[in-house]
Amino acid sequence: MHSGAASSVSIITIGDELLIGQTVDTNSAWMAMELNKAGFNIKRRVAVGDEWKAIWAALDEESQHAEVILITGGLGPTSDDITKPLLCSYFNGTLVRNEAAHQNVVDIFTRRLNRPLLERNLRQADVPDTCVVIQNKRGTAPGMWFEKNEKIFISMPGVPFEMKGMMTKDVIPGLLKRFNVQAVEHRTLLTAGIGESFLAEKLVEFERTLPKEIKLAYLPNYGMVRLRLSLLQTTLPVSVLEETFIQLQALVSEFMVVNKDITLQEAVAELLISTGKTLAVAESCTGGYIAHLITSIPGSSAFYLGGAVSYSNHLKQSMLHVEASTLAEHGAVSDETVRQMAEGVRLVAGADYGLATSGIMGPTGATPTKDLGLLWVACSSASGTVSTSFQFRFDRKRNIELSAAHALHFLRKNIG
Amino acid sequence: MHSGAASSVSIITIGDELLIGQTVDTNSAWMAMELNKAGFNIKRRVAVGDEWKAIWAALDEESQHAEVILITGGLGPTSDDITKPLLCSYFNGTLVRNEAAHQNVVDIFTRRLNRPLLERNLRQADVPDTCVVIQNKRGTAPGMWFEKNEKIFISMPGVPFEMKGMMTKDVIPGLLKRFNVQAVEHRTLLTAGIGESFLAEKLVEFERTLPKEIKLAYLPNYGMVRLRLSLLQTTLPVSVLEETFIQLQALVSEFMVVNKDITLQEAVAELLISTGKTLAVAESCTGGYIAHLITSIPGSSAFYLGGAVSYSNHLKQSMLHVEASTLAEHGAVSDETVRQMAEGVRLVAGADYGLATSGIMGPTGATPTKDLGLLWVACSSASGTVSTSFQFRFDRKRNIELSAAHALHFLRKNIG
Repeated sequence: MHSGAASSVSIITIGDELLIGQTVDTNSAWMAMELNKAGFNIKRRVAVGDEWKAIWAALDEESQHAEVILITGGLGPTSDDITKPLLCSYFNGTLVRNEAAHQNVVDIFTRRLNRPLLERNLRQADVPDTCVVIQNKRGTAPGMWFEKNEKIFISMPGVPFEMKGMMTKDVIPGLLKRFNVQAVEHRTLLTAGIGESFLAEKLVEFERTLPKEIKLAYLPNYGMVRLRLSLLQTTLPVSVLEETFIQLQALVSEFMVVNKDITLQEAVAELLISTGKTLAVAESCTGGYIAHLITSIPGSSAFYLGGAVSYSNHLKQSMLHVEASTLAEHGAVSDETVRQMAEGVRLVAGADYGLATSGIMGPTGATPTKDLGLLWVACSSASGTVSTSFQFRFDRKRNIELSAAHALHFLRKNIG
Repeated sequence: MHSGAASSVSIITIGDELLIGQTVDTNSAWMAMELNKAGFNIKRRVAVGDEWKAIWAALDEESQHAEVILITGGLGPTSDDITKPLLCSYFNGTLVRNEAAHQNVVDIFTRRLNRPLLERNLRQADVPDTCVVIQNKRGTAPGMWFEKNEKIFISMPGVPFEMKGMMTKDVIPGLLKRFNVQAVEHRTLLTAGIGESFLAEKLVEFERTLPKEIKLAYLPNYGMVRLRLSLLQTTLPVSVLEETFIQLQALVSEFMVVNKDITLQEAVAELLISTGKTLAVAESCTGGYIAHLITSIPGSSAFYLGGAVSYSNHLKQSMLHVEASTLAEHGAVSDETVRQMAEGVRLVAGADYGLATSGIMGPTGATPTKDLGLLWVACSSASGTVSTSFQFRFDRKRNIELSAAHALHFLRKNIG
């Protein structure tokens, strides 16, 4: 069995579409996070194209950096996939049909897809005879576990759902049997309303006196900053990390949203569920993004009733009962309108809280008195309605993301 | 000036939070896409942590693979950032205060942030005297352009908005002055309703007779498959690529959504704008995601009026006029309900088309007669309402994404 400190992993993703950015790689981030949680030391993540020499070189190089090399992608049924023949050659094998994988392909096509089975699909069950096959219950391409010069190489398909199934069921458990790792402990909190450098100023003395086994990281995201403490070595007990985390919470208490590694929307969800309150949301400029963030949380129907995406003025009136005179006098992007939207959606939905946004996300839509990036937010409850405005200076996508984050933070502060 | 074929690029991203997957890296995908469009050959993308030895090794190694090495991340004002001192040492420099960068930091703090300026922020204007400074108009950390052993190294901050500004304004134009590149031509079309392997079967003969300078790639995504033809060498004229693309379109015509490299929602937007029609959307299971996809498109208010996220049955009735008896008899996830939702949202918004979704995205909510992953979609217009159902078998996130894609595709087919 290898020792804990040496259980290092490199991740190689294969595919032109990933390399040139036509597809964003979410696989290797997910893999890294799961492996990190399990206690492995992620050394590098490398993306290469569908090119024989580049893949071969990556296998050679990454085996110099890490003990375990995980590979995803390049295993599809189409002819732009060269990974399997390459692995066969790299590990000196011959392609043979694997019976269990063959049966799996037949099952998937007959039971699940109800499509005729092509020879091309059956060839997915061919694997080098120098690997241990990892069966793929979620798709047709099996995984392959190779060993060479004391290094472990594991190849998985690039379809996230299939890769995740293999990682959870076979790969991580298999690696844990081989390596004596100890999970790295993290403690994370989320702050809002303070910049990274101001937090750092507040924490100069805290950082100076940190034990060398504990590392503090600043993770800024959408105008919020997460602070993460990591216990890097097990020579220090976890209780010291806990104590240090309590100190940290005290130092940033006025800006702390939540003392867990959860998203802002999850923090809002927890608060609403624990207090038994419900929420409805009326979105103009955020265009459904707040609703999407909330409804991505499993079980969100326990507190989220729904709402409106009131892009047109007509819908603001018909669905949310904003007054025509308010729109005429103050415009759609105004304190007056957003307050009526929040009150309207709360009453129509019969919710405890109504949240509303209206703004100008760009690239066009500015007026002489209203700049691009202006956001109005209102939060309404039985005890009254409060509102505020923000001014962002980014592009449409980032303005929408920042608007949603600031609206959720404003809601959270106003949940009694 | 270097020759076109040799203008190869490696991208290094620095940061523990990226390496261990706490933050998904979208920077290097965007950079790769822009550089690819400009004609550069992306060789590799590598992620490493905030660790001196790992960054140093990555600089050494990537300069073996490529002529240009782009680096993002690790330039923030907090003490977990070690990139700048490392670059200073790697390129044998001394840190000096850059006047223009200093002025920029002062400007940003006084004019834009209206916050007191800390020495920590001013230190962001310190750069190695062996680089050419790239000014950052969007943030406080300047970019740095180094050259060593005939290789170009460019370091940029990890904040996407800042990196994008530098890439567009300085880095790509600067590289284009140095390299005589010729843009790789791509032609891409989007198909729906056919699997990757079936497309490949249809295209066996087409692929067999492709000129060797043209490459076909299959890019599956959310139940759709994009087909991309790339002209790899300029020995063949672009007109041959055009002709080949026309052949390809004819071969897959029955499954083709659009013959451009745009998203499904952009195809829907183009169609609605060109026909002068408007759309309203009522979402239950997709929870605002369709609205978000549409409203992320600049100018979407030209055709999108808005709609409802009718999570609760109460809102389905009050906002969309779904009949209580329909909900009681058939349930919220049913053909009858989704048709009334589509009609209701169309009439309430005064739109030409109404699109509605209702389904069970998981992880809970299945009934004896309705499985997890069931989706009902309806599309309503003055000429009537049509509906259909799908059955997905994935996790909540992917079920929502697939539901939105299939609903948009169903809408598109039904736009007269």
